[in-house]
Amino acid sequence: MPRSKKTGMPPGSLIFTGKNNYEKVKIQLIDYTQTKLQEKELKNVEECFPFKNRPTVTWLNITGVHEVDIVEKIGKYFGLHPLMIEDILTIDQRPKIEDFDKGLFIIFRMLSYDEKKSEVNSEQVSLIIGKHFVISFQETEGDIFDPIRKRIRNARGRIRNMNSDYLAYALLDILIDNYFTILEKIGEKVEDTEEKLLEDPDIKTINTIHILKRDLIILRKSVWPLREVISKMQRSGSKLIHRATQVYLRDLYDHTIQVIDTIETLKDTTSSMLEVYLSSISNKMNEVMKVLTMFASIFIPLTFIVGVYGMNFKFMPELNWKYSYFVVWGVIIAVGLSMLFHYKRKGWI
Amino acid sequence: MPRSKKTGMPPGSLIFTGKNNYEKVKIQLIDYTQTKLQEKELKNVEECFPFKNRPTVTWLNITGVHEVDIVEKIGKYFGLHPLMIEDILTIDQRPKIEDFDKGLFIIFRMLSYDEKKSEVNSEQVSLIIGKHFVISFQETEGDIFDPIRKRIRNARGRIRNMNSDYLAYALLDILIDNYFTILEKIGEKVEDTEEKLLEDPDIKTINTIHILKRDLIILRKSVWPLREVISKMQRSGSKLIHRATQVYLRDLYDHTIQVIDTIETLKDTTSSMLEVYLSSISNKMNEVMKVLTMFASIFIPLTFIVGVYGMNFKFMPELNWKYSYFVVWGVIIAVGLSMLFHYKRKGWI
Amino acid sequence: MPRSKKTGMPPGSLIFTGKNNYEKVKIQLIDYTQTKLQEKELKNVEECFPFKNRPTVTWLNITGVHEVDIVEKIGKYFGLHPLMIEDILTIDQRPKIEDFDKGLFIIFRMLSYDEKKSEVNSEQVSLIIGKHFVISFQETEGDIFDPIRKRIRNARGRIRNMNSDYLAYALLDILIDNYFTILEKIGEKVEDTEEKLLEDPDIKTINTIHILKRDLIILRKSVWPLREVISKMQRSGSKLIHRATQVYLRDLYDHTIQVIDTIETLKDTTSSMLEVYLSSISNKMNEVMKVLTMFASIFIPLTFIVGVYGMNFKFMPELNWKYSYFVVWGVIIAVGLSMLFHYKRKGWI
Amino acid sequence: MPRSKKTGMPPGSLIFTGKNNYEKVKIQLIDYTQTKLQEKELKNVEECFPFKNRPTVTWLNITGVHEVDIVEKIGKYFGLHPLMIEDILTIDQRPKIEDFDKGLFIIFRMLSYDEKKSEVNSEQVSLIIGKHFVISFQETEGDIFDPIRKRIRNARGRIRNMNSDYLAYALLDILIDNYFTILEKIGEKVEDTEEKLLEDPDIKTINTIHILKRDLIILRKSVWPLREVISKMQRSGSKLIHRATQVYLRDLYDHTIQVIDTIETLKDTTSSMLEVYLSSISNKMNEVMKVLTMFASIFIPLTFIVGVYGMNFKFMPELNWKYSYFVVWGVIIAVGLSMLFHYKRKGWI
Amino acid sequence: MPRSKKTGMPPGSLIFTGKNNYEKVKIQLIDYTQTKLQEKELKNVEECFPFKNRPTVTWLNITGVHEVDIVEKIGKYFGLHPLMIEDILTIDQRPKIEDFDKGLFIIFRMLSYDEKKSEVNSEQVSLIIGKHFVISFQETEGDIFDPIRKRIRNARGRIRNMNSDYLAYALLDILIDNYFTILEKIGEKVEDTEEKLLEDPDIKTINTIHILKRDLIILRKSVWPLREVISKMQRSGSKLIHRATQVYLRDLYDHTIQVIDTIETLKDTTSSMLEVYLSSISNKMNEVMKVLTMFASIFIPLTFIVGVYGMNFKFMPELNWKYSYFVVWGVIIAVGLSMLFHYKRKGWI
Repeated sequence: MPRSKKTGMPPGSLIFTGKNNYEKVKIQLIDYTQTKLQEKELKNVEECFPFKNRPTVTWLNITGVHEVDIVEKIGKYFGLHPLMIEDILTIDQRPKIEDFDKGLFIIFRMLSYDEKKSEVNSEQVSLIIGKHFVISFQETEGDIFDPIRKRIRNARGRIRNMNSDYLAYALLDILIDNYFTILEKIGEKVEDTEEKLLEDPDIKTINTIHILKRDLIILRKSVWPLREVISKMQRSGSKLIHRATQVYLRDLYDHTIQVIDTIETLKDTTSSMLEVYLSSISNKMNEVMKVLTMFASIFIPLTFIVGVYGMNFKFMPELNWKYSYFVVWGVIIAVGLSMLFHYKRKGWI
Repeated sequence: MPRSKKTGMPPGSLIFTGKNNYEKVKIQLIDYTQTKLQEKELKNVEECFPFKNRPTVTWLNITGVHEVDIVEKIGKYFGLHPLMIEDILTIDQRPKIEDFDKGLFIIFRMLSYDEKKSEVNSEQVSLIIGKHFVISFQETEGDIFDPIRKRIRNARGRIRNMNSDYLAYALLDILIDNYFTILEKIGEKVEDTEEKLLEDPDIKTINTIHILKRDLIILRKSVWPLREVISKMQRSGSKLIHRATQVYLRDLYDHTIQVIDTIETLKDTTSSMLEVYLSSISNKMNEVMKVLTMFASIFIPLTFIVGVYGMNFKFMPELNWKYSYFVVWGVIIAVGLSMLFHYKRKGWI
Repeated sequence: MPRSKKTGMPPGSLIFTGKNNYEKVKIQLIDYTQTKLQEKELKNVEECFPFKNRPTVTWLNITGVHEVDIVEKIGKYFGLHPLMIEDILTIDQRPKIEDFDKGLFIIFRMLSYDEKKSEVNSEQVSLIIGKHFVISFQETEGDIFDPIRKRIRNARGRIRNMNSDYLAYALLDILIDNYFTILEKIGEKVEDTEEKLLEDPDIKTINTIHILKRDLIILRKSVWPLREVISKMQRSGSKLIHRATQVYLRDLYDHTIQVIDTIETLKDTTSSMLEVYLSSISNKMNEVMKVLTMFASIFIPLTFIVGVYGMNFKFMPELNWKYSYFVVWGVIIAVGLSMLFHYKRKGWI
Repeated sequence: MPRSKKTGMPPGSLIFTGKNNYEKVKIQLIDYTQTKLQEKELKNVEECFPFKNRPTVTWLNITGVHEVDIVEKIGKYFGLHPLMIEDILTIDQRPKIEDFDKGLFIIFRMLSYDEKKSEVNSEQVSLIIGKHFVISFQETEGDIFDPIRKRIRNARGRIRNMNSDYLAYALLDILIDNYFTILEKIGEKVEDTEEKLLEDPDIKTINTIHILKRDLIILRKSVWPLREVISKMQRSGSKLIHRATQVYLRDLYDHTIQVIDTIETLKDTTSSMLEVYLSSISNKMNEVMKVLTMFASIFIPLTFIVGVYGMNFKFMPELNWKYSYFVVWGVIIAVGLSMLFHYKRKGWI
Repeated sequence: MPRSKKTGMPPGSLIFTGKNNYEKVKIQLIDYTQTKLQEKELKNVEECFPFKNRPTVTWLNITGVHEVDIVEKIGKYFGLHPLMIEDILTIDQRPKIEDFDKGLFIIFRMLSYDEKKSEVNSEQVSLIIGKHFVISFQETEGDIFDPIRKRIRNARGRIRNMNSDYLAYALLDILIDNYFTILEKIGEKVEDTEEKLLEDPDIKTINTIHILKRDLIILRKSVWPLREVISKMQRSGSKLIHRATQVYLRDLYDHTIQVIDTIETLKDTTSSMLEVYLSSISNKMNEVMKVLTMFASIFIPLTFIVGVYGMNFKFMPELNWKYSYFVVWGVIIAVGLSMLFHYKRKGWI
């Protein structure tokens, strides 16, 4: 259901605005402390309720937000404002962060790059960070968070020693690392196209450039707000964000800036490429025109000359002279050579 | 009457600057509390006066601002500054908010999209928010506020439990939701045009792009100031805005930013499309030129050759040789093929 | 005398930098309170001196600043800094406001639009606001302030009840209202040109667009600083600006922003128009090229064919066959039709 | 020595980075109070030392900074930081101001316009402002400061009554007045070129536009930092800047802003001119193509027709008909006229 | 290993992201006070540990960061946060500064210009500034820091009298001086290309411009963040930065601004060059078209005329008239001359 259909509904109307997706919603729960680890798939939303206040770190990952009921139950139980629940269900949200009394609510965009269609696709990820839990909502199943699961299981890195804020950081970090992957792919395409452009541009080149530019415009729209989100998260003064996590958030912020820088640089490059393309097409046309002009300006006058002596007048004195034919050939060669010489001097040949 | 005609009049001169509109002005009143609801159409302005201080929420909706008298009476009774009354009547105002001692005065633009002419039309909506009332002025009759009326009648959502500030929020929210509808339509047009552009651009494409760009420029002019209006409304510190409404206003602000983002993205895309169009036209012309050049550069020399032997000189030795004709054909074929081969190697064919 | 001639002179050098203007300087004085009104034309500068401290509102309007003496005398008597007197005489000043101990000094630009030449002309207006007086300097005679005079005479609006700050506001207001008039004219020209552009662009269109763009650049240069001037006037904290006038100044500020918005929108539109123009010219050329290429590529080969049988070789077997001529016609028609069919399929016809 | 040669040298390395200039360095001293005046050319740097603390205003003008010794001796005696002495010698500095305990150190750029080459040349001027002295360094001899000398000698203006800060202001003021002169010249060139552009653009026009644009880019680079320099000077809170001078500095600041405004306006105009140029060239080419296409599309088919009857087949019935020739002429004229009519209707003629 | 491969690894994962580089890592140590100097190449990381707290200035320069072990040992011993060690190893970092309790951590980019390929290459340099030491990491061996070593050995400048902060400043200063060298080279290329452009542009010119523009885009990406880094270093309030060094950092900041200014100016110039190129190509094509059109429009009609009298009709009265041939020549010459005259008047010749 497109967003426009919601016009006029009261705020907090819980309606899923994405495409219908008939897969079953999947609820994964990982609960851990430094020493213990529990992992299970929930059949029933209510199973996760007891973990809310347990002093362990609980990560609840919901894949699929098309079942409004599930999102609503979780939202209500964990103290979300109705507008936040609405935001989770409205899947074209701008990245944002909200500080509510029970925790932090973050909306992020997860990007993927469809190399075949050269298209950047985006999906909404919502995070709720509480004292003892992190709840993440994804639209479709994906394996992007698998490395985190492995790190928790294997107690790799410091994740098992830290609180829910570090888990949230880890999730955000992996999303932004993913942006680098996409930018590397786009960067490679830009370089390929640039090479093509300088060597042998054709009509496909211009389409490729336009598509790259459009992808970068979409990327930029997704990434610019991130900067503010992470900056607000750092400076929120929320008790949830521990001092030890601050340095990681600063690192995350640096990464975001670097993503933005790279996007801007790539955008500038593609803009310049468009101009180069236009110039090089004009240049090529110029070459084509020169060929045409040379042929036409040499042979059209010559054809005129031989046309003259193809006339059938009774009285044309030259026709009867003995060497006329050869004189005409002489004239033809002289005219032809002088034109060639002229174009040579002009640098056309 | 165009705005320029007002030059030199004292400020606060109450003159309607729109096109004359001979429909009758319609005054609708809805008065409600959590439990009671009263709805009527007023024949006479004065009928609404008693509601001013009644501790219910009163919504007075005036359709048509071309009868200066009515606007003036309401304005004066509800304590508006003469300049504000003038603003209601001057229908090309920039969105703005004014904090006056009796309440808040807001000017907004309501947009509609005429799909036939691909034109964005805009109409001015003025809101006055008091402790117990909201007064809204529209230029023409429209059904945009109908969903709010239904919600009030049916007590859907929380609207019947809240104060006048929430009613004002609901009206603003529906206006901004409307922007999403328009942007969706423009977005679809942009996508259609983009497809057309990459496949088979013609002269109509460029006009469509220009019109889309112009529409976006107009939209932007209407939307940018909204950001400031809503931000000021949030931070106004007015007693009228209750804490519970703040979170809704923040949501509204997020929507406005998203509208702005979408407009900027669409503008960037149309700008890039213009450049692609120019390049692709140049490219096409290049192809046309190549065809011309090939034909001309192959057949013009050949025509010259056959012209030579069309001359009528008495003494042309070749004319009498037996195989001349076939030799000439040989030369013609050789020249033709070598040119074709040359263009093949150059990649023109 | 152009400004560059003043290089090296000490600051405060009182030299008129405009074109010489031999009309006599005209000094008009209007002095009023709520109840009394006195209006006269002064023959002598000194006549106005007694009004300086009289507790009435005195408006001194000087038309013509080419007589340095007059400006200097007034400036000195009313306590202006020599640099301000210099500013009044140097007629290409940027709009600005200065707070001096005796009052406020404002420089504004008054614009007019020469529809014949499509040119924006500008003239400098200087205002000095004191406790009991407003002094205005214009370069040439104009009727722009006439409505104010009428309002004072007829006691229309609240002008007779207010102080000198309100009079100054009224003068500034009429100047800015005048900008709307100019923008309406330019806006109409832009719309006309846009229509022309989409229907039938020619070389004059491009000149018109360039001139409109240049006019808007000049307008922008005049208007941007106004924003700051009025904002500073509002926030100056000067005792001269009474609370009651503040709301009018805020209104004036809104108008200025609206002027700026309109200029930016028009500039964006004209920029887009330039690009559309270029594309549409390219498109037209493409059409022309197609016509040429079709004619050339159909008839040049045919001319070659008929040329072949115009050769005069003795031994050309086809010449003597009976149906050769009709066969050649068959070939000609076949080639011609197949080319036409080819171009039809390519969409050129 | 280009700046890059200094890479790796310790900061404060005193090396002149300009072109060698074998003229002798000239040291001029003017020392004055309200009543006395002493002016002499120094042979020896040390002669100026006694003036440092004398309670008169001393202006030391050094022409030529290629003799490192002289600059160093002065710098050290008057208490400059080694980095400042280095700045005086490194002649491609960005304008800046430094507040040091003995005074203010200012770097400015003095511009001149070489009308023949249409080039903006720039030279570095360094100023040291102390309690009783101003030291100015110029690269080459010029007469730009002559008017100041005259004003001091003749006690014109208030310069003899004021302190060293006013002298410094006077020097800066004359430099900025000089910018107006240059901008007037460039402005005239822009207007000339604009006229040329709209009437009869040729290849030289584009070069002129490019050179004007480049000049404006260079100018902008020199002028933007001035704004900050003068603003810092105003707000420095240095005891050297007396209250009476503040108003002059504010005036200077206004002038700088006006210079910047003018540059931006001229830049916008030249940018627009480039686009107009491109459009008008395309337009001209369009005209040329139309001429070509008309000639080719009328005469190529006609040439084909007459070619047909130039064939030498034995059996061509038309050849023997009596009125064939006239019929052919009829066809030729019919075809020619209908083509002409077609192009007339298309508006090509 | 490209950066994208690190996606999903825990933060602080120590993996070198550059290209493998099998040269041995080189560790150089210079330890000095005002009077003593010790310089050696370390075989073993641990040899440097005793210098950490010694009250001399120790400069540890590590060339090669591909051996993770070495970087990690140093990082841990000198108290770096794991994220900082990760930053040293991740070689495509954005320039940044981090204040940690033991000192300052700075990432810079060292640029070099490959004149053959016209490419800007960049390498990461990391600096750790402690109370008694500076540690610098370079990716590859280079001689850029040699002048500093010489200054330390020869006790040139004030470097031996100052603390570790001055040493760090000296290293940063040499890096930025290096930017000037690169900009000088690019500036020369820009000037060469500009000259080429105005005289005789060809297809290589456009590629050169594009490459210059791309180089400047890359440069800008490296340089903009420097501004912030140095500004933060100045304002960090860290005890490590002594008052005496502040003035040098301000100088460094000025240099950075100057580098940025120069880059922006060069970028503007290259942008303008692209537009000039496009215009001049269009202009050239116009010239080519004129030549073609002139030849075609003169000779095609003439060829038609002579074709008429090449027809073989039996009844063509003109063929038998005596002076027909000469009359035809007369017509030909008349038509040809009138066309030439026409083009002459149009200014095409």
